[in-house]
Amino acid sequence: MCGVFGVFNSKTPAEDTFYGLYSLQHRGQEAAGIVVAEYNKIKKKTLFKQHKGMGLVAEVFRDETVFERLGGYAAIGHNRYSTTGSASSASNIQPFSLTYRSGSLAIAHNGNLTNSRTLRRELTELGVIFQASSDTEIIPHLAARSREKEPIHQLYEALLQVQGAYSMVLLANNQMIAARDPYGFRPLALGKKVDPLTGELAYIVASETCAFDIIQAEYIRDIEPGEILLIDHLAVANEKPTSLFLPPSERKARCIFEYVYFARPDSFIFKHSVDKIRRNLGKNLARESSIQHQPGEKELTVVSVPDSSNTAALGFVRESIKMERPARFEHGLIRNHYVGRTFIQPGIHSRDIKVRSKYNIVRGVLLDRPIILVDDSIVRGTTAKMLIKLIREADPKAIHLHISSPPITNPCFYGMDFPTKRQLLTHMFDSLDNDEEEIEKIREYIGVDSLKYLSMQGLMNSVPSFEGETCSYCTACFSGDYPIEVSDATTDKDEND
Amino acid sequence: MCGVFGVFNSKTPAEDTFYGLYSLQHRGQEAAGIVVAEYNKIKKKTLFKQHKGMGLVAEVFRDETVFERLGGYAAIGHNRYSTTGSASSASNIQPFSLTYRSGSLAIAHNGNLTNSRTLRRELTELGVIFQASSDTEIIPHLAARSREKEPIHQLYEALLQVQGAYSMVLLANNQMIAARDPYGFRPLALGKKVDPLTGELAYIVASETCAFDIIQAEYIRDIEPGEILLIDHLAVANEKPTSLFLPPSERKARCIFEYVYFARPDSFIFKHSVDKIRRNLGKNLARESSIQHQPGEKELTVVSVPDSSNTAALGFVRESIKMERPARFEHGLIRNHYVGRTFIQPGIHSRDIKVRSKYNIVRGVLLDRPIILVDDSIVRGTTAKMLIKLIREADPKAIHLHISSPPITNPCFYGMDFPTKRQLLTHMFDSLDNDEEEIEKIREYIGVDSLKYLSMQGLMNSVPSFEGETCSYCTACFSGDYPIEVSDATTDKDEND
Amino acid sequence: MCGVFGVFNSKTPAEDTFYGLYSLQHRGQEAAGIVVAEYNKIKKKTLFKQHKGMGLVAEVFRDETVFERLGGYAAIGHNRYSTTGSASSASNIQPFSLTYRSGSLAIAHNGNLTNSRTLRRELTELGVIFQASSDTEIIPHLAARSREKEPIHQLYEALLQVQGAYSMVLLANNQMIAARDPYGFRPLALGKKVDPLTGELAYIVASETCAFDIIQAEYIRDIEPGEILLIDHLAVANEKPTSLFLPPSERKARCIFEYVYFARPDSFIFKHSVDKIRRNLGKNLARESSIQHQPGEKELTVVSVPDSSNTAALGFVRESIKMERPARFEHGLIRNHYVGRTFIQPGIHSRDIKVRSKYNIVRGVLLDRPIILVDDSIVRGTTAKMLIKLIREADPKAIHLHISSPPITNPCFYGMDFPTKRQLLTHMFDSLDNDEEEIEKIREYIGVDSLKYLSMQGLMNSVPSFEGETCSYCTACFSGDYPIEVSDATTDKDEND
Amino acid sequence: MCGVFGVFNSKTPAEDTFYGLYSLQHRGQEAAGIVVAEYNKIKKKTLFKQHKGMGLVAEVFRDETVFERLGGYAAIGHNRYSTTGSASSASNIQPFSLTYRSGSLAIAHNGNLTNSRTLRRELTELGVIFQASSDTEIIPHLAARSREKEPIHQLYEALLQVQGAYSMVLLANNQMIAARDPYGFRPLALGKKVDPLTGELAYIVASETCAFDIIQAEYIRDIEPGEILLIDHLAVANEKPTSLFLPPSERKARCIFEYVYFARPDSFIFKHSVDKIRRNLGKNLARESSIQHQPGEKELTVVSVPDSSNTAALGFVRESIKMERPARFEHGLIRNHYVGRTFIQPGIHSRDIKVRSKYNIVRGVLLDRPIILVDDSIVRGTTAKMLIKLIREADPKAIHLHISSPPITNPCFYGMDFPTKRQLLTHMFDSLDNDEEEIEKIREYIGVDSLKYLSMQGLMNSVPSFEGETCSYCTACFSGDYPIEVSDATTDKDEND
Repeated sequence: MCGVFGVFNSKTPAEDTFYGLYSLQHRGQEAAGIVVAEYNKIKKKTLFKQHKGMGLVAEVFRDETVFERLGGYAAIGHNRYSTTGSASSASNIQPFSLTYRSGSLAIAHNGNLTNSRTLRRELTELGVIFQASSDTEIIPHLAARSREKEPIHQLYEALLQVQGAYSMVLLANNQMIAARDPYGFRPLALGKKVDPLTGELAYIVASETCAFDIIQAEYIRDIEPGEILLIDHLAVANEKPTSLFLPPSERKARCIFEYVYFARPDSFIFKHSVDKIRRNLGKNLARESSIQHQPGEKELTVVSVPDSSNTAALGFVRESIKMERPARFEHGLIRNHYVGRTFIQPGIHSRDIKVRSKYNIVRGVLLDRPIILVDDSIVRGTTAKMLIKLIREADPKAIHLHISSPPITNPCFYGMDFPTKRQLLTHMFDSLDNDEEEIEKIREYIGVDSLKYLSMQGLMNSVPSFEGETCSYCTACFSGDYPIEVSDATTDKDEND
Repeated sequence: MCGVFGVFNSKTPAEDTFYGLYSLQHRGQEAAGIVVAEYNKIKKKTLFKQHKGMGLVAEVFRDETVFERLGGYAAIGHNRYSTTGSASSASNIQPFSLTYRSGSLAIAHNGNLTNSRTLRRELTELGVIFQASSDTEIIPHLAARSREKEPIHQLYEALLQVQGAYSMVLLANNQMIAARDPYGFRPLALGKKVDPLTGELAYIVASETCAFDIIQAEYIRDIEPGEILLIDHLAVANEKPTSLFLPPSERKARCIFEYVYFARPDSFIFKHSVDKIRRNLGKNLARESSIQHQPGEKELTVVSVPDSSNTAALGFVRESIKMERPARFEHGLIRNHYVGRTFIQPGIHSRDIKVRSKYNIVRGVLLDRPIILVDDSIVRGTTAKMLIKLIREADPKAIHLHISSPPITNPCFYGMDFPTKRQLLTHMFDSLDNDEEEIEKIREYIGVDSLKYLSMQGLMNSVPSFEGETCSYCTACFSGDYPIEVSDATTDKDEND
Repeated sequence: MCGVFGVFNSKTPAEDTFYGLYSLQHRGQEAAGIVVAEYNKIKKKTLFKQHKGMGLVAEVFRDETVFERLGGYAAIGHNRYSTTGSASSASNIQPFSLTYRSGSLAIAHNGNLTNSRTLRRELTELGVIFQASSDTEIIPHLAARSREKEPIHQLYEALLQVQGAYSMVLLANNQMIAARDPYGFRPLALGKKVDPLTGELAYIVASETCAFDIIQAEYIRDIEPGEILLIDHLAVANEKPTSLFLPPSERKARCIFEYVYFARPDSFIFKHSVDKIRRNLGKNLARESSIQHQPGEKELTVVSVPDSSNTAALGFVRESIKMERPARFEHGLIRNHYVGRTFIQPGIHSRDIKVRSKYNIVRGVLLDRPIILVDDSIVRGTTAKMLIKLIREADPKAIHLHISSPPITNPCFYGMDFPTKRQLLTHMFDSLDNDEEEIEKIREYIGVDSLKYLSMQGLMNSVPSFEGETCSYCTACFSGDYPIEVSDATTDKDEND
Repeated sequence: MCGVFGVFNSKTPAEDTFYGLYSLQHRGQEAAGIVVAEYNKIKKKTLFKQHKGMGLVAEVFRDETVFERLGGYAAIGHNRYSTTGSASSASNIQPFSLTYRSGSLAIAHNGNLTNSRTLRRELTELGVIFQASSDTEIIPHLAARSREKEPIHQLYEALLQVQGAYSMVLLANNQMIAARDPYGFRPLALGKKVDPLTGELAYIVASETCAFDIIQAEYIRDIEPGEILLIDHLAVANEKPTSLFLPPSERKARCIFEYVYFARPDSFIFKHSVDKIRRNLGKNLARESSIQHQPGEKELTVVSVPDSSNTAALGFVRESIKMERPARFEHGLIRNHYVGRTFIQPGIHSRDIKVRSKYNIVRGVLLDRPIILVDDSIVRGTTAKMLIKLIREADPKAIHLHISSPPITNPCFYGMDFPTKRQLLTHMFDSLDNDEEEIEKIREYIGVDSLKYLSMQGLMNSVPSFEGETCSYCTACFSGDYPIEVSDATTDKDEND
């Protein structure tokens, strides 16, 4: 996963992008980069400048003089997710910047192409060279081979050929272009900001709306599935960006996992408040829960895994009360504020030092109580197992683990960094015949007194419906129902991991 | 403020100390250091090794080979709080390590001596040189001038001469010593851990018990006010450290602000759970609150400033419900996980970018609602003012700011890094004759609909009482009642800030 | 200018390349990189790994763990010359590494293509994208578009299309390829080394033979002009690399400036000892010199600008003695050993601090003496001017500046980093009608008592002749006689500088 | 060994000191620091600021903003020599800066105290603590214990108590003080510079006069043995620094090894040109040499080990010619310009990679010739042995190693970083009864055809004589004649090394 950001017609495009990327840091912690478009008075055209590096945004842009050097009037930026192995290379840091027939191009991309292997093979057969291992490089190659004159038409032609998930923002000479795949897998929002001094209008594009908030920009609308939006100086003057639309897909496939876990709760994703949907997940989880207060026991205590499941836990409590099965919300786990990329683990004390470094228990609110621990999801299960071990040290009466989403049973081929099927917790047990037995095995493995996942129905009841759509979400990781054929991507997955 | 940590008889003392300091990071982010005691087989005695640097613990100890180099069987460590100006110098990074008549000594100190200026003058008159500007350097000078033979007796003599607040841990050749001033201003706890492989016992000393949790050590008891505790190989063999006691002070003076804000909620401070006391503060604040639900308004919504006032806010809600003035707890503010020391603020967009970089609002839970914002304290007021401005963007019906402690009206001379009196928010208005008028001025300045501080009585009702003590806490910052005369320190304060 | 190095069938290819690049550091100080070919047992094929960075070789490879990570059995490396402006970007650091139809390719290149502008335009018209601004990227694009199957044949086809100067080494899957343009502008030598432990044979390719010496390899022969040499495991087994040859050029054009200044004196360049040729230059300069000892003056003292003109100065003295015009050789200038890339110049004391930081005078051997200062060349003239000013502080009787090459009157389009014509010292005065007048103007500008350049004839008499060649050298910078048409390159030059 | 520098009444004292230390880099490469005296307008007194770090001067002061921060009107600086083991610690980086009874003090010291162990014991008995392991810390302790009021008088009292070698420069509040021990072991020179813009006079103190040249300052005179020189604003106004003198020693003991090897040839040391004395050493070596040209052999070729023995080699050749035993001077060894601290040696190819990284041979001038290799001294012999092995690869007829100083047979206790007696090459063989036999063993070990050391008499004939002194030099390393009793220091040496 990744975060993308773009701004057009700002006095401080690099600074805006820095703050935007900073607020999107949760979407990718491995590397960050900014490409700026600046008008060069001598050459009388727009040229690009860039600064990229491995690490958090605040680390890559630690030196303030970088911003003086960058200047410009527009910029795009990218946060890359932490991946492992060969992919962790400097040549993969985005945005990619290049020159081609029509001038300069830079691209920042969030998503995963499902026909990348085929396209790559076809392109290399035509004599194309690839300097990075990322999917993203395919798109400028396709655009550069188009016979169209305008970058937006070249990109249109390119995107007709690619399949899969993409939300991207590009600089093409003196234009900014934003595009989202027809299925709408990944979010992409459009915002604007009026400079308080000059009254000039800047357009902004970002993966999540929290990036607008930090620079006091305003959320206008989403880039629609299949939309290719062009922002140039004319668009600014008319206050009207123009759009092309790719042929519509037969269905939509918004990533439901953005709502479940990935996006920030203060963002609007797919036009809706993430916080509100997480609350719904918690409420529906409460409705489905069978945990009852036992006579003689202390009050049922709902604890969230901070901060990602805070809102779901609150929703759970609220609904429980409504259902007259009262439970109290408690901060039973404390999250260390200083966890970061630089964290080393010398002389490993125990296998659970990673969990201990991130969380600690508040003994007073856990001791002797029946705990309903609300978490958003379980991927590999190793963290959950160690977290439960940590909580046990506070001697709770019981731990009932409630997950505000269904079991993850399938890998993602559209950008979410799930492991291969083999590494998913659910895989350990999937020779079993029925779900109940499988969940009992997982419960035992993790070491809790009971384990409850939200049902698929509960999940679907929690998310907004989009009028006129038969299918609005991608739920493949939970259901195995893949919106786009994945044979190509699967093989990739197997080879790379 | 600072954090101190020490461990004796461990196979991995530097690693233990690293994790301990990591969990105490909130007590000081400017610099960190570790001194290790290692037995040198050639010289047949214990020698010290050290590694120190500016920055967070995880930054200073980024290179794992440091731990291989350090080795040893005992270690002490120190986190220094971020201070400003001349004090931010490398020569002030603790622990201080030195050689003197009786061998090697290293010291890590949390606190502030109130007669440091006088002692410094007296010592320099005797020909002593000072290589750092910190108070701490005075103590080894006094110890080195003692005619006693044993380091612990030298330290005893030294501590008879100093006044003020100190919790410290030292290495003296092959011994570890922990000491706490007779008033007991700052916390200091004793723990132990049995090595799961060798069965060997290690003793641990730390500012807060959360440092025990991270390395799976067990909290035994506090170092008592006035206690000087000696841990050596004999103490380990007998499982019995030995103690000296300084002459008792006429009263105790535990820092009540540790409970209000400074310590981690998962720690036990002065033998009691911080989380529980913060909850009491919230409960008492609810009892004193006069905010009532207004007919036609949405439900009263309690929002905490994450994470420091989370528990107080929960306590507030719990008590409100009990009082039949129901209010709902909401996560209305989101704290950015990536805030850190390295954060720069290029091209300052607006004066409130610092607050925006740390917090964002969750619009859905704030819009049109009457908000009770619970915060732990207000020092300068600048952050509070900007936070309120940010919350206003979500269009709440009203903001009622509730502070879970009384107004801070006086500087601290015992280690808390409050600004001078002039810089405290309360000072702006203290020519006014009565408190009500002053609070109205503050309310107006911060820009809230109403402002409520917890009363002194409410504060005292929230904290544990210690049997047989007439006075247990230092409340000077709230009350001006200074346990130790401060003429010397005051002057220092004026000159340094 | 740049340095290239490659090694095939070594146990320590990255280390070998590190030492090779270290000894070729004078050919490029701005950036360095190594690409290693390693057999991946899981994927059952050779994969590439790389490490690149800005700075000196010893800075880029400061961390020894890099070598553990790199591993492999073959490697190529590159030193990039310090250039200014937009070119100083991380995306230009070589070797370039990429994947294409036939697998993996990496390339390290020394030289300059003269039809790069045309080729770039043609390629972009075909839809090719360029990610760097360097000429080098053109070559893999051309190779990738070839329909040939074998990388060496693809490269052959590519090189048929490019014009200009190139000496390059490539990794293509499990092969190493070295190539040199038909004119032979830049040097490229072939060496070998037998592993003292295993007896295995490694082949080595390097810009200069000094790179063989440092790793105790043996110089076999030059890569011939127009030769494309293939080294693979078969070549190693047979002790016989195979070669293709590009169509021969009508003449050769070995860069004579490599002999004059650029190469290390301990290298063999174009099969001949650089030291010996520099001595010839000094001897011929002595023969042409008209400086006579004046009665009453102290002995004529020959001083070199260390270390580049040391050998020429020795040759000058030797020949002078033979001609019975005795002169003594003296170390009148001391070169600071610590001059390096990291050198900053705070608070510029005077315009000549750069020269003062690099050289100091030995007053005793200069005072009151007539000095013959031997230098190899003058490019811009600013350093020479300041150096003379420095020497004047020692109060010599006179300074006779003797240059062991003719005046540089024309820019280089084949890789030497000369400035544009406008910036050459000779340009300042080239409206003058005859050379004598021009040299008088230069003498005055630099501030010496007399100025003597070596004649073109003297230069040609100093360098070896190659049998059967009508023209063996490129002397364009001195003569304006460009071996390859330069219209394309000229324009480039004008635009970039 | 170390380099010291100080400047008083400059507009750019930190920059001056940077350049001074840069030119003194050869005196110490391990660490560097600068302390600046700046007038603080608010506190109305001079305060000190500092910047110190491990590494070369250009590395420690890589960030130009440091100079903006430092400011001030006076500064002192220090280069520390690379030492091994425990001493390589950050707490030992000079200048030391401290506060004491009379205000602020900073000290930069070159030398070694011979009674440091006794003084340290006495001081610790009095309750003094030591924060570094360096001798230097003793001096401010002694000064601070003086009852005198003026820093110069305090320092006078302190220096009466110390024995050994010291050349030092101090800042004491608004004064600069320079001091040199009565024996005059280490050099220390006084210079001045008139600001070209303001006409203001600055005084400068430096270990060597090459530090004056780089900033265009003028050498006035040496700080005399036993002199303590005070420079303050009054001294500047009167153009007359004032001096105190310590009681004279019965003899002088200028370090003769400064002339032989350590100092830069362009410096004046002890009032005389180092270059000239090195030439004398070469001349006297020629007079003592018995190598004759053999019939049928090529011309005798004199090669220096660059750059340290260049001048001696030239003197050797000059004298040989005068003696009608002609020999030609050749640059047979090339010194790599990029050798530096950062140089790592991955995957050690052979034991001689260190020598190969620093030097390479010029085959043409060595092949088949009888070589007289002139070197300044042999300490351990390991480098010489490997260098000879390298030269042998060029197949010289013979190698006659000539050393321009006598055998080093004794360790230095006055600051030169020689190894212990056990590690000196001469020690390997000193059970032998006569010198000839010993030299034969060394010759064999190093692997040369003949080995010749300059005689003690030859050495003494080469250095200037000082009128009225019975003994002017310390020759202890050659002769064992120690000017100051060394029992205390010896023990130190044994223990530390």
